[in-house]
Amino acid sequence: MSGLHEECGILGLYSNSSGALAETVYYGLYALQHRGQEGCGIAVCDEGVITAHKDTGLVGEVFDHRTLSEMPQGNMAVGHVRYSTTGGNERRNCQPIVVNHQKGRMALAHNGNLSNAAALRSELELSGAIFHTTSDTEIIAYTITKQRLRCSSIEQAVLQTMDIIEGAYSLIVMSPTKLIAVRDPFGFRPLCFGKMPEDGGYVVASESCALTAIGAEFVRDIEPGEMLIFSSEGIRSERSHCGTKPRRTCIFEYIYFARPDSVIDGVSVHDSRLKAGRILAEECPADADIVIGVPDSGLDAALGFSQASGIPYGIGLIKNKYIARTFISPGQSSRTDKVRIKLAAVASTVKDKRVVLVDDSIVRGTTGGRIVSLLREAGAKEIHFRVSAPPFLHPCYYGTDIDSEDGLIASHHTPAETAAIMGADSLGYLPVGRLDELNCGMGCCRSCFTGDYPTAIQRNAVKDRYEMKIPKK
Amino acid sequence: MSGLHEECGILGLYSNSSGALAETVYYGLYALQHRGQEGCGIAVCDEGVITAHKDTGLVGEVFDHRTLSEMPQGNMAVGHVRYSTTGGNERRNCQPIVVNHQKGRMALAHNGNLSNAAALRSELELSGAIFHTTSDTEIIAYTITKQRLRCSSIEQAVLQTMDIIEGAYSLIVMSPTKLIAVRDPFGFRPLCFGKMPEDGGYVVASESCALTAIGAEFVRDIEPGEMLIFSSEGIRSERSHCGTKPRRTCIFEYIYFARPDSVIDGVSVHDSRLKAGRILAEECPADADIVIGVPDSGLDAALGFSQASGIPYGIGLIKNKYIARTFISPGQSSRTDKVRIKLAAVASTVKDKRVVLVDDSIVRGTTGGRIVSLLREAGAKEIHFRVSAPPFLHPCYYGTDIDSEDGLIASHHTPAETAAIMGADSLGYLPVGRLDELNCGMGCCRSCFTGDYPTAIQRNAVKDRYEMKIPKK
Amino acid sequence: MSGLHEECGILGLYSNSSGALAETVYYGLYALQHRGQEGCGIAVCDEGVITAHKDTGLVGEVFDHRTLSEMPQGNMAVGHVRYSTTGGNERRNCQPIVVNHQKGRMALAHNGNLSNAAALRSELELSGAIFHTTSDTEIIAYTITKQRLRCSSIEQAVLQTMDIIEGAYSLIVMSPTKLIAVRDPFGFRPLCFGKMPEDGGYVVASESCALTAIGAEFVRDIEPGEMLIFSSEGIRSERSHCGTKPRRTCIFEYIYFARPDSVIDGVSVHDSRLKAGRILAEECPADADIVIGVPDSGLDAALGFSQASGIPYGIGLIKNKYIARTFISPGQSSRTDKVRIKLAAVASTVKDKRVVLVDDSIVRGTTGGRIVSLLREAGAKEIHFRVSAPPFLHPCYYGTDIDSEDGLIASHHTPAETAAIMGADSLGYLPVGRLDELNCGMGCCRSCFTGDYPTAIQRNAVKDRYEMKIPKK
Amino acid sequence: MSGLHEECGILGLYSNSSGALAETVYYGLYALQHRGQEGCGIAVCDEGVITAHKDTGLVGEVFDHRTLSEMPQGNMAVGHVRYSTTGGNERRNCQPIVVNHQKGRMALAHNGNLSNAAALRSELELSGAIFHTTSDTEIIAYTITKQRLRCSSIEQAVLQTMDIIEGAYSLIVMSPTKLIAVRDPFGFRPLCFGKMPEDGGYVVASESCALTAIGAEFVRDIEPGEMLIFSSEGIRSERSHCGTKPRRTCIFEYIYFARPDSVIDGVSVHDSRLKAGRILAEECPADADIVIGVPDSGLDAALGFSQASGIPYGIGLIKNKYIARTFISPGQSSRTDKVRIKLAAVASTVKDKRVVLVDDSIVRGTTGGRIVSLLREAGAKEIHFRVSAPPFLHPCYYGTDIDSEDGLIASHHTPAETAAIMGADSLGYLPVGRLDELNCGMGCCRSCFTGDYPTAIQRNAVKDRYEMKIPKK
Repeated sequence: MSGLHEECGILGLYSNSSGALAETVYYGLYALQHRGQEGCGIAVCDEGVITAHKDTGLVGEVFDHRTLSEMPQGNMAVGHVRYSTTGGNERRNCQPIVVNHQKGRMALAHNGNLSNAAALRSELELSGAIFHTTSDTEIIAYTITKQRLRCSSIEQAVLQTMDIIEGAYSLIVMSPTKLIAVRDPFGFRPLCFGKMPEDGGYVVASESCALTAIGAEFVRDIEPGEMLIFSSEGIRSERSHCGTKPRRTCIFEYIYFARPDSVIDGVSVHDSRLKAGRILAEECPADADIVIGVPDSGLDAALGFSQASGIPYGIGLIKNKYIARTFISPGQSSRTDKVRIKLAAVASTVKDKRVVLVDDSIVRGTTGGRIVSLLREAGAKEIHFRVSAPPFLHPCYYGTDIDSEDGLIASHHTPAETAAIMGADSLGYLPVGRLDELNCGMGCCRSCFTGDYPTAIQRNAVKDRYEMKIPKK
Repeated sequence: MSGLHEECGILGLYSNSSGALAETVYYGLYALQHRGQEGCGIAVCDEGVITAHKDTGLVGEVFDHRTLSEMPQGNMAVGHVRYSTTGGNERRNCQPIVVNHQKGRMALAHNGNLSNAAALRSELELSGAIFHTTSDTEIIAYTITKQRLRCSSIEQAVLQTMDIIEGAYSLIVMSPTKLIAVRDPFGFRPLCFGKMPEDGGYVVASESCALTAIGAEFVRDIEPGEMLIFSSEGIRSERSHCGTKPRRTCIFEYIYFARPDSVIDGVSVHDSRLKAGRILAEECPADADIVIGVPDSGLDAALGFSQASGIPYGIGLIKNKYIARTFISPGQSSRTDKVRIKLAAVASTVKDKRVVLVDDSIVRGTTGGRIVSLLREAGAKEIHFRVSAPPFLHPCYYGTDIDSEDGLIASHHTPAETAAIMGADSLGYLPVGRLDELNCGMGCCRSCFTGDYPTAIQRNAVKDRYEMKIPKK
Repeated sequence: MSGLHEECGILGLYSNSSGALAETVYYGLYALQHRGQEGCGIAVCDEGVITAHKDTGLVGEVFDHRTLSEMPQGNMAVGHVRYSTTGGNERRNCQPIVVNHQKGRMALAHNGNLSNAAALRSELELSGAIFHTTSDTEIIAYTITKQRLRCSSIEQAVLQTMDIIEGAYSLIVMSPTKLIAVRDPFGFRPLCFGKMPEDGGYVVASESCALTAIGAEFVRDIEPGEMLIFSSEGIRSERSHCGTKPRRTCIFEYIYFARPDSVIDGVSVHDSRLKAGRILAEECPADADIVIGVPDSGLDAALGFSQASGIPYGIGLIKNKYIARTFISPGQSSRTDKVRIKLAAVASTVKDKRVVLVDDSIVRGTTGGRIVSLLREAGAKEIHFRVSAPPFLHPCYYGTDIDSEDGLIASHHTPAETAAIMGADSLGYLPVGRLDELNCGMGCCRSCFTGDYPTAIQRNAVKDRYEMKIPKK
Repeated sequence: MSGLHEECGILGLYSNSSGALAETVYYGLYALQHRGQEGCGIAVCDEGVITAHKDTGLVGEVFDHRTLSEMPQGNMAVGHVRYSTTGGNERRNCQPIVVNHQKGRMALAHNGNLSNAAALRSELELSGAIFHTTSDTEIIAYTITKQRLRCSSIEQAVLQTMDIIEGAYSLIVMSPTKLIAVRDPFGFRPLCFGKMPEDGGYVVASESCALTAIGAEFVRDIEPGEMLIFSSEGIRSERSHCGTKPRRTCIFEYIYFARPDSVIDGVSVHDSRLKAGRILAEECPADADIVIGVPDSGLDAALGFSQASGIPYGIGLIKNKYIARTFISPGQSSRTDKVRIKLAAVASTVKDKRVVLVDDSIVRGTTGGRIVSLLREAGAKEIHFRVSAPPFLHPCYYGTDIDSEDGLIASHHTPAETAAIMGADSLGYLPVGRLDELNCGMGCCRSCFTGDYPTAIQRNAVKDRYEMKIPKK
């Protein structure tokens, strides 16, 4: 619980017969909602005609009985949940994007961030393209469409697009007859697929928890660089981009983004967090009476810390389930700060105790400081803050909403200084060197900790450009 | 009151200083609301940054205190009201369209229909363009942007666009520093401009009634083919396309679309309708006791008929002011038909009288038939139906919502047959030959009466294409 | 068009079989909407169980497909439209009021104002009653319920209530088995009934226009003091209160409130207004070129003035149909005043003309002054203001929203002064002495012109009492 | 997680100076939201004038920036969250109830259920009262008002009301100058108060977690039978009803309703649940590998079970945070049941394990059965279901939403049968005999387990009466 945000979850369905697929996507998006709460959408393909509904808001706000029942039946569907960094009325940025081009209609849902977005966009504009959104997804849509003019099939166009776009992308493309799922060669963002038990259809999703939610059977993760094509001819795997790059799964998928019941690239997210807690206990032990976690994402690591250290696990913080997007930020009074409304300390757990407090990350340090205060008020004697991730030092260009070092407390303060600022008695981080253990050594992107990026980086100047005022002469 | 619909009203403001222009556009759009009730929008330019708000709904629904106060101050603004033929959630089709291209940002508002839309769209798509709407306006936006890549100024790009697009278009283009108003060389749709008395600014609008509503002083109509450029250097008129085509003002602007207090190309709409009524009295006289009009657009012609014939004018039909878009169509019972809720006969006016009933047009004949019934129930002895337009026989490709001859009663029945179908005692139309008198002989488009179109016609296949299902093999 | 407002319209249905009565009430309320635009409601009785839906807003806002379809079928229904003077969230004041008392459930809809409300309310409170609204209707509900405890039937309880309440009331009471309609002994507010042609059911409504709208056949007005009881035994008329008071129909029902196609107590509202215009032409003639009316309620009198004077009738003012409750009042700029958005002058009608301008009333004089300005701007040479009512001098206690003399321009200025304030060349009112001609001499309430009230008056102190602050000691 | 629901949470503020109290109540209601999610409201008293806003919906839905900023400043305020058993549009049942009576204005907020409601209501109706809601709170309002007519002060009226009403009630009454808090002599529902540190004001609330949320300092619980009066003269405790009845705190407040960080009558809710888990481990041990809880309310007892048994604690079920009131129930397909969307098993925790599953209660058994299935699918080898409450056998008349034995699985099946129905390997309940240990032996209401009620019981026939149809003759 930190200030980090993931940019999207995607889900696609392919069925051999027509049905109320929008309904199934709806349930699946509920299971991916943690990956994006700003907007969502569903597109259905009914004999080649694509109908979409999307808007800002949670799945349960955008889709009600009426909107859902107005979606047509079909044999393919794509859904998307979105986190937006820009705020305001960004309805047009919602996905899936639907393209009604004479050379091929399609719907696209995308999770990730391109690292060469600015250059691609500029080039496309100079060839006459008009962009309606500020999202990378529209760049992908344009690139596919451009390739489509020269290619005999949609999958050829997508394959060639993979030679052009760079960075993080898990992508679902729905043409009138095929559903195509793609994961970028680094495998930054997860993507897996499963089988619908009843009708022999397939489902592709960002996380396995969405498969379970709709009763599908997990088949396997899509590999970095792999493209899967679902059509009336069955599944085909196109692997020409596989192995062209080293695997660089975003380690924050394990630490924070994904749901603990998901399994990504064969590794249980819950186990990964337990492991982080156990490593923390080894690397940053504490002499304490109780271990508590910050709900929800700090609980697993706290349990791991307890298991490895032998210090009893306790329930020391309660999260208010009713704080939603509409919560009005408290006014001037310090008595009513937002953290106090969102979290409450369980005094009987922490009173007169030496407490190990485990959270998944520290971004600006303000929330952490407020939590420390809550525990002090509740009578905690000592507070040893443990973070199940290394210090966050550098911006991320692959989909995490940290685009500058400015607010990152770890970029400007030592752990001891940070502990003092937050009012904790000690502070310990997970060492970068042990990160690979979290996903069983398969390789992960750790550039937000090291500043060492797997791709070339262009700072995305698109938004700035459009909002720059023209100076008066 | 007929089944005809106009596709849009536009309004632009240019001021020498920054102010709450969105508010002024809001009031102006109220005065143009009769030209489109499906959607509306306002875009404001503040030192080059363009901010827009648009949605489906009436001006008073889309803009409330909050949305209006959230619009930035600026020195230019464009507004639009829209009529949509397609129904459903067509939010994306709302205008102004905002283009944030690196070679030039702009906002566009458009009234009219291109007759070469399908060919232009296809050509643009084959060069890689992706369309997000089904509207002609996006074709214009693409064409301007394509030209802009090769032109040194936005006005050059718009001028070259006029060589490419064909059909009906009154257009307002707002670049970061200029406001450009264009009327197509035939002058199908009206466009005029005025001066804001207080600050020396300018306003462009579809109809003069919008100028009056915001307290501006009417200057003159924009001529067919003329382009006006408003900038910090004042107004400039670019006339290279003037006089290249014969004037073909849509005659239905006078008969039905425009507000009676507007003056179009120097001719008062109210006077034009009075004249239509007078001609009707000469050409299709009736032996009657009273002349009544169908509110609102039939009242002026009814008064003209009364003046020319000497038959007293009466108030014989009342229109319910509260029937809005949300009105639920009556159920199975014949007692509660929609016409009966919308219109009521004033029995004391028509009882035991021979009535001349004047309306502006007959499209399918069903509404006319229902009105005849209401008057019979109220005791009218004879009903002589007079129409202040010629028989509507052919589809319109320039912005009127009649895209096929299928439902047009006059295409399939003689006036006598139509009278019988509607239950009227007689029926008379305005002769085509006298149409020119309505706008003082300046020339008008009468193709919906004659089938003789001023431009080449491509039936617009865009919508069909996108909604066509792929046949199962 | 003036500043006067009517407080409500009511409608009741009695059918011998169960059906979708809410739908029919919905259409009927559309025809009564002019009597109240602040709120509305419908209650349906299905085998004794009463279900209601009501809220602030227009009929088309409060009832949509969903709310309407959720109303049960039934054999009786009551509807109400309401004008509220208080503003704000007055949802609880909406009607019909539903009472679920063990001695008798009922729904009530009421039009009028009690002149002894304050005393009755105080007395009821001192016996333990708690009021949930500030409306007179709740006082009537309590009084009926109190009587009901001692009476063997609901109609007995209503009859005894008529001995207790004083002032203006047209009332519909729906018990589980009977529909009861009552008009107060003075007959201040209209009430009539008709027959549903198809099923032999009945409809009661404030105005005959609602009967026509739903296809019912007008039977007759309910007489002052009469009570009608509709039940499975047919209709019964209880006339014990008839003739106990002189008839005092509110003359503003004819002049302004009612729809011109309604017939009240045998007199056509349209004819009554034509007559007012003719009397005006006799009493306050003007040397002029054209007669125009302020739409909508001034048009009939203008036509009457034209007929009597021989001065031609013209269409000189256009009313914007889209100004609704949500219209945002213009800002600081004088260019954008509300009257300018609501009304527009037709220059070609009034330019260089001497104009007779007819409106139904002048309350504060501000709107009148703004209209005079619009006509001057449009080129009118002289403006002779004629009012189809006498000067409004005194507050009304029977349902018109004028509760004090403070803002009444006629209370403080002579006609000549008022003309000067408004910028008119002359001003003439309908003489009080000729008012009786408007409803054919049957007798009318004219206390707002004379200050002579037919009942004793208690200024209603209820609202004040509840909003009075407690002074700090 | 069970099917039980609490009926309401209440909160009152008294301050010595005027301020934005509605804002503070808003934050406090967020902390009480778990006690009622159907509706909420806030009433503010500003120098004796009471203004309220209330509606159906969550706190964050009913109150937004606009509604909150429109609430007046004041020196007293009352808030309420409500659970409604009836569903549908029950806006009128929302609280606080505001009474504007000439003998005394007041606002009331109530938590509980009266056991003599039907008799009181009937008696009040026969004296002329009209009820607008079906809630007990209105009965209390009427009774206080009736007493007020004979009493010199509001507190006297409330005291006398305590002699008349019977059952469960925690009550806050706000008069123009005083805030009065009352807890019934049995102390069924909790109520406590605290001090606002900054301004010397006071806060009364259903649970101590609300005090912490707004930064107040807990003072003490209000005692069963006690009345506290907050006024400009300070606090006064009126104890004449204290000790007249045995303490009967609802044991489900500890087991399920209250938030674990609350302390009720000196006992931490979290500790009480840990204790329940420990007793379970003693009384119903299981040979197992892991203990997991059903989130959220089963987690504490699961941890207690783990501590007492030595079996490791695990995180085995994840709750979806985004399931709200708007969630559309899954369709026909068994793949998409609601439990599957709300809860997910963590396979890596339960796979191939013998699992102890702890939940707080079993009502109908369906949810429990679905959870067992989820765990089986995830690979659990054995599932030993443990319930931290005794079998639920009898209806509750004091505020819990179980009004009949019909659906209670424990009323019809032995534990072994229930285990079989749910698919569990064993099932164990907390013994009734050890309930007192949960609140340290102070005494609790256990009538839902034993059928032995502390007061006389009248089945509440009010709702039935009003909804009964009248049989056709």
